[in-house]
Amino acid sequence: MHVHAFIEEMERLAPPELAEDFDAGRIGLVVEGRPRISRVCCALDVTPNIVKQAVAVSADMLVVHHTPLWTPVTTITGRTAGLMRALLSAEMNLYVMHTNFDRAREGVNDALAELLSLEDISPMSIGCIGSCILTPAQISRRVGGNCRLWGKVKKIGRLAIVAGSGFDTALMAEAQARGADTYLSAEMKHSVARTAPLPCIEATHYALEAPAMQRLSTRMGWQYIDDPPLLRIIP
Amino acid sequence: MHVHAFIEEMERLAPPELAEDFDAGRIGLVVEGRPRISRVCCALDVTPNIVKQAVAVSADMLVVHHTPLWTPVTTITGRTAGLMRALLSAEMNLYVMHTNFDRAREGVNDALAELLSLEDISPMSIGCIGSCILTPAQISRRVGGNCRLWGKVKKIGRLAIVAGSGFDTALMAEAQARGADTYLSAEMKHSVARTAPLPCIEATHYALEAPAMQRLSTRMGWQYIDDPPLLRIIP
Amino acid sequence: MHVHAFIEEMERLAPPELAEDFDAGRIGLVVEGRPRISRVCCALDVTPNIVKQAVAVSADMLVVHHTPLWTPVTTITGRTAGLMRALLSAEMNLYVMHTNFDRAREGVNDALAELLSLEDISPMSIGCIGSCILTPAQISRRVGGNCRLWGKVKKIGRLAIVAGSGFDTALMAEAQARGADTYLSAEMKHSVARTAPLPCIEATHYALEAPAMQRLSTRMGWQYIDDPPLLRIIP
Amino acid sequence: MHVHAFIEEMERLAPPELAEDFDAGRIGLVVEGRPRISRVCCALDVTPNIVKQAVAVSADMLVVHHTPLWTPVTTITGRTAGLMRALLSAEMNLYVMHTNFDRAREGVNDALAELLSLEDISPMSIGCIGSCILTPAQISRRVGGNCRLWGKVKKIGRLAIVAGSGFDTALMAEAQARGADTYLSAEMKHSVARTAPLPCIEATHYALEAPAMQRLSTRMGWQYIDDPPLLRIIP
Amino acid sequence: MHVHAFIEEMERLAPPELAEDFDAGRIGLVVEGRPRISRVCCALDVTPNIVKQAVAVSADMLVVHHTPLWTPVTTITGRTAGLMRALLSAEMNLYVMHTNFDRAREGVNDALAELLSLEDISPMSIGCIGSCILTPAQISRRVGGNCRLWGKVKKIGRLAIVAGSGFDTALMAEAQARGADTYLSAEMKHSVARTAPLPCIEATHYALEAPAMQRLSTRMGWQYIDDPPLLRIIP
Amino acid sequence: MHVHAFIEEMERLAPPELAEDFDAGRIGLVVEGRPRISRVCCALDVTPNIVKQAVAVSADMLVVHHTPLWTPVTTITGRTAGLMRALLSAEMNLYVMHTNFDRAREGVNDALAELLSLEDISPMSIGCIGSCILTPAQISRRVGGNCRLWGKVKKIGRLAIVAGSGFDTALMAEAQARGADTYLSAEMKHSVARTAPLPCIEATHYALEAPAMQRLSTRMGWQYIDDPPLLRIIP
Repeated sequence: MHVHAFIEEMERLAPPELAEDFDAGRIGLVVEGRPRISRVCCALDVTPNIVKQAVAVSADMLVVHHTPLWTPVTTITGRTAGLMRALLSAEMNLYVMHTNFDRAREGVNDALAELLSLEDISPMSIGCIGSCILTPAQISRRVGGNCRLWGKVKKIGRLAIVAGSGFDTALMAEAQARGADTYLSAEMKHSVARTAPLPCIEATHYALEAPAMQRLSTRMGWQYIDDPPLLRIIP
Repeated sequence: MHVHAFIEEMERLAPPELAEDFDAGRIGLVVEGRPRISRVCCALDVTPNIVKQAVAVSADMLVVHHTPLWTPVTTITGRTAGLMRALLSAEMNLYVMHTNFDRAREGVNDALAELLSLEDISPMSIGCIGSCILTPAQISRRVGGNCRLWGKVKKIGRLAIVAGSGFDTALMAEAQARGADTYLSAEMKHSVARTAPLPCIEATHYALEAPAMQRLSTRMGWQYIDDPPLLRIIP
Repeated sequence: MHVHAFIEEMERLAPPELAEDFDAGRIGLVVEGRPRISRVCCALDVTPNIVKQAVAVSADMLVVHHTPLWTPVTTITGRTAGLMRALLSAEMNLYVMHTNFDRAREGVNDALAELLSLEDISPMSIGCIGSCILTPAQISRRVGGNCRLWGKVKKIGRLAIVAGSGFDTALMAEAQARGADTYLSAEMKHSVARTAPLPCIEATHYALEAPAMQRLSTRMGWQYIDDPPLLRIIP
Repeated sequence: MHVHAFIEEMERLAPPELAEDFDAGRIGLVVEGRPRISRVCCALDVTPNIVKQAVAVSADMLVVHHTPLWTPVTTITGRTAGLMRALLSAEMNLYVMHTNFDRAREGVNDALAELLSLEDISPMSIGCIGSCILTPAQISRRVGGNCRLWGKVKKIGRLAIVAGSGFDTALMAEAQARGADTYLSAEMKHSVARTAPLPCIEATHYALEAPAMQRLSTRMGWQYIDDPPLLRIIP
Repeated sequence: MHVHAFIEEMERLAPPELAEDFDAGRIGLVVEGRPRISRVCCALDVTPNIVKQAVAVSADMLVVHHTPLWTPVTTITGRTAGLMRALLSAEMNLYVMHTNFDRAREGVNDALAELLSLEDISPMSIGCIGSCILTPAQISRRVGGNCRLWGKVKKIGRLAIVAGSGFDTALMAEAQARGADTYLSAEMKHSVARTAPLPCIEATHYALEAPAMQRLSTRMGWQYIDDPPLLRIIP
Repeated sequence: MHVHAFIEEMERLAPPELAEDFDAGRIGLVVEGRPRISRVCCALDVTPNIVKQAVAVSADMLVVHHTPLWTPVTTITGRTAGLMRALLSAEMNLYVMHTNFDRAREGVNDALAELLSLEDISPMSIGCIGSCILTPAQISRRVGGNCRLWGKVKKIGRLAIVAGSGFDTALMAEAQARGADTYLSAEMKHSVARTAPLPCIEATHYALEAPAMQRLSTRMGWQYIDDPPLLRIIP
């Protein structure tokens, strides 16, 4: 498949016009490799480990959620030089789907809703709300464990979910106004927790977003490369 | 004591010129109450619960680390109306020391270093580095427990500490350049964790900053009001 | 009446979408008090004297034209602390209608036009133009006296009126283009007077805007509180 | 005298570095005419009438306080075309001294202080404060009459004066802090009057600034051209 | 003809709404002279020489492509004073058509296409592309000679032309995408030449734009004043 | 030699603090390769051809004047991907000296002054002025031929030179004020030529800057790679 055809297919899956403005120039074909695509790998991030594995299987294309070139650069040094050398030397393409995939059908939030068996789902400006039959402990286990509960998390009825870093004051107000009683996302900040209108479940960013990349890989016949951050809790 | 004299004393303890530029207009006397100060309460944040306790003991002054008026307002409604009504009706003063107290002698980072028994301390642009004889588990217990370890935290030699939200890429590079082998702060973000040059210990924002307010209260003969966020972990 | 119902009624009288962009966040419910509204006071400004009178009659709501929180604040001290303490302690609501009421039907400019018995009225982008049978001296008496005449004010045919601070070069050009021969507003500036294309009558800001608040109070059965600035002329 | 020598002399009288930042590019030689200066006229503003009189006496140079090109232009049309045609056709130079002359020795504020017989003068960041033996009525007469008194103007002890448009909240706070009990300036605004910490006397902009140009003309042997705005009061 | 009628006619020829945003305030009647227009001169620029010739034939109106007041001014001195004195003293009007005339029918790019006998013309966002039967040497002769050829200019098929300073990377990419094989414009920069996707022919800005003014003059019965920059090449 | 030592040496030759602000982040080590430097190539630009030659001789380091990453990027595609792939695959370092080398001793302008045998040299804010015994034709031959002469270039006494794109109105005024009678630079623009206070000689950007890189290579024992843009003139 030619890279142009591959890009067209990706744009059907995650239309670029769904992306937030801040993603302008940071999604789509981020590193250009060879024009023929036979083997595709997929991951959440671009880590040295992931690129190494993709090179090892001679992938022509790596599809990820998080671009390695977020801040615009005028130099290619250090960690960026390492990643770019590995990708460019292998003539591998790098394709990024970010907030456009968050919002896409069967995208990041849809995959999370499915993972948590949510029902009667209604959308929010980002993420969604659904009826949840799981307990907080069951939710925690499904998203990798060790969740933090902020506030009095009781029996969950309607759960708002925002994959990624979604503990935002305005979004939480929206969730409450739309009938949510509990809010699940990642990367809680103290100042937000202090004024949160809802009890919150905090998972890791990786645990909330990786499932979508994994499911996409299965659906497309790609090879998913798992590389969660090394994390543990000490009591 | 007149409120002017009280302010002078506070400015000796935490000189306003030590504050970051973003604190301009957000530290010092944030709410003006009666001019005579007899009874002082102290806390980390301004929560409804804390204000209620301060009112209950007829405090004339509440000293905190985090202002309740961070974003400039043109209306006083909702939660802000509740806080301001409670403070103003009681004619209580509210005094804020933020990044100036982070950097002050015996301030937020000094108190944390003492809590962790650091030695041979050298300063960073924010926070500091010291020799640490505690294990990660001991550190976790001293800062409230349930710390998250990111990366391979091994035997700690030189520990960099930044109280509050200090997992910043540039600061972490500074810590590494100054010889730290482990980094302690709060509010880790996924994108920072992915490129962290050092193993990291993540505590809560509250646990890292409250000790300084507590020690200040003891030193000054004030009443410290503890109000940590309600937080627990489910495996 | 619940405050939400009161707000809805106010938004019918002075639709927020009529307001200038600079009023964003500065109109509507500016200070939140108790949710039940039985007694309403109305005034042009929020002065200590006006708040005192409103408190004295146990008003639940004060409706004004000029917000006391124009410049966004991160502290509540001095005069603002005094006003906010009085309002919040009394659990009084404060509702502001500014440029939306200037432009509303039966709003500030309509009330002024009626006060001056204008006829054949046609609108301007702000304010309006109408045929005027009064002499300058009669106009002066109707708007509180002691008007200043700039330039050669002769027999008036079509009078442009802009309540408030409306001596603006572009507006005056618009008035001239639409056939006005005289221009009435407040707060003339030297640089504007030097290039004014029309003779001008300058009244006070208060005198031009207070009538609308007074008429609104009569219409709604509210209590109007008059508090003009103390002003006199020495020859 | 060559225009360069004339400019040097002016820069000694009113050093450009005394000017406010907003005057950058708006003071000094604003219109360039012939290089030889024999006859100089002086006025407060550049009005068609003033230029006509200066042309009538064959002036080579017109010195004023207020530039006619305040807003940067990309076209020369209408009133500006008329003024520029008159000046340029006559090869007359136009020299502007603005806030640098406000602050200069024997400049605008000094001339006003002298006109009002102030004594024991101490400077403010703009304008000054002095002991005043005149009554408000006497002051009004000396500055052209018909002054407006805002607030309770009683016996004056220390009078703050700011020639031009000087009713600024921060300046008035400075005046009060420096011991003034009354404040004289021009162009009062309603919002400022409502919160003024001092009783105020409002004269016209012209009446407060013209005396300095007149005295400068006398001192330098220039011809002063008086052209006050046409203004009268109707009771 | 009254100047208003003249302006209306010009706005039909070169509608102001076709202009780039950066031309706002810099096109149309840039200097206002007498209201009656009998004799019109036309040129590319406003040079002292051109104004002198227009004055010599008593023109009431000078129509040009490049405004002499590009950068907004707060002073009229030096070269600008000379030009403005000459125009204003003669009461000559100055009318500017810039990017609106570039894009107008029979405007700058149309005139250039005609000069180069282009056929099968299709538009670009600026300029156009057409089939060209001329050799580079013939093109050079038609646009004043001494063209510079950048890259391998071979037999031309489809020529992109952008009158004025049009060697812009994005425009050149557009030209290539639309099938051009050679690109003609003025003012090549080294950094652009290094990455140009097409061979380029560089003429002078004057040579590419003057023909349109000349043809317009002929069509309208105006007097065209030619004043190319003095330019020659030494081998 | 380690790359750190190499960088130190370069910073002595062309101190980064001499650079213009716009060069921030665009000079120094722009692409990071292997840490050991044995073989150095040098050129003016980074073209595919130059990189190919540097790779062919197994250079570890390429020193250039113009960075290939001027505009900050968030993607590596097209031409940039090609250049970066070639550099990174070869583990070649890329070092950029731009305006710091323009101003350095024996830097770009010094080399040009030497090439033109200038004497009695005095500096300008950028570039310099020197006495010149060459004719325009001789100058043209020394800087690659085919120079364009703008205005009446006569016998040259004091020649201002600004290597690169230096036809700037303010710089030309400075040159004139410092006694220059002729001005040499590259990339003349029509609008600048129309108001130039001095006759000008326009060479190419490459011809004015390449000599410095060539001389530096000779001095340092590096291999200079010449790659001028393909350029010719048709009469």
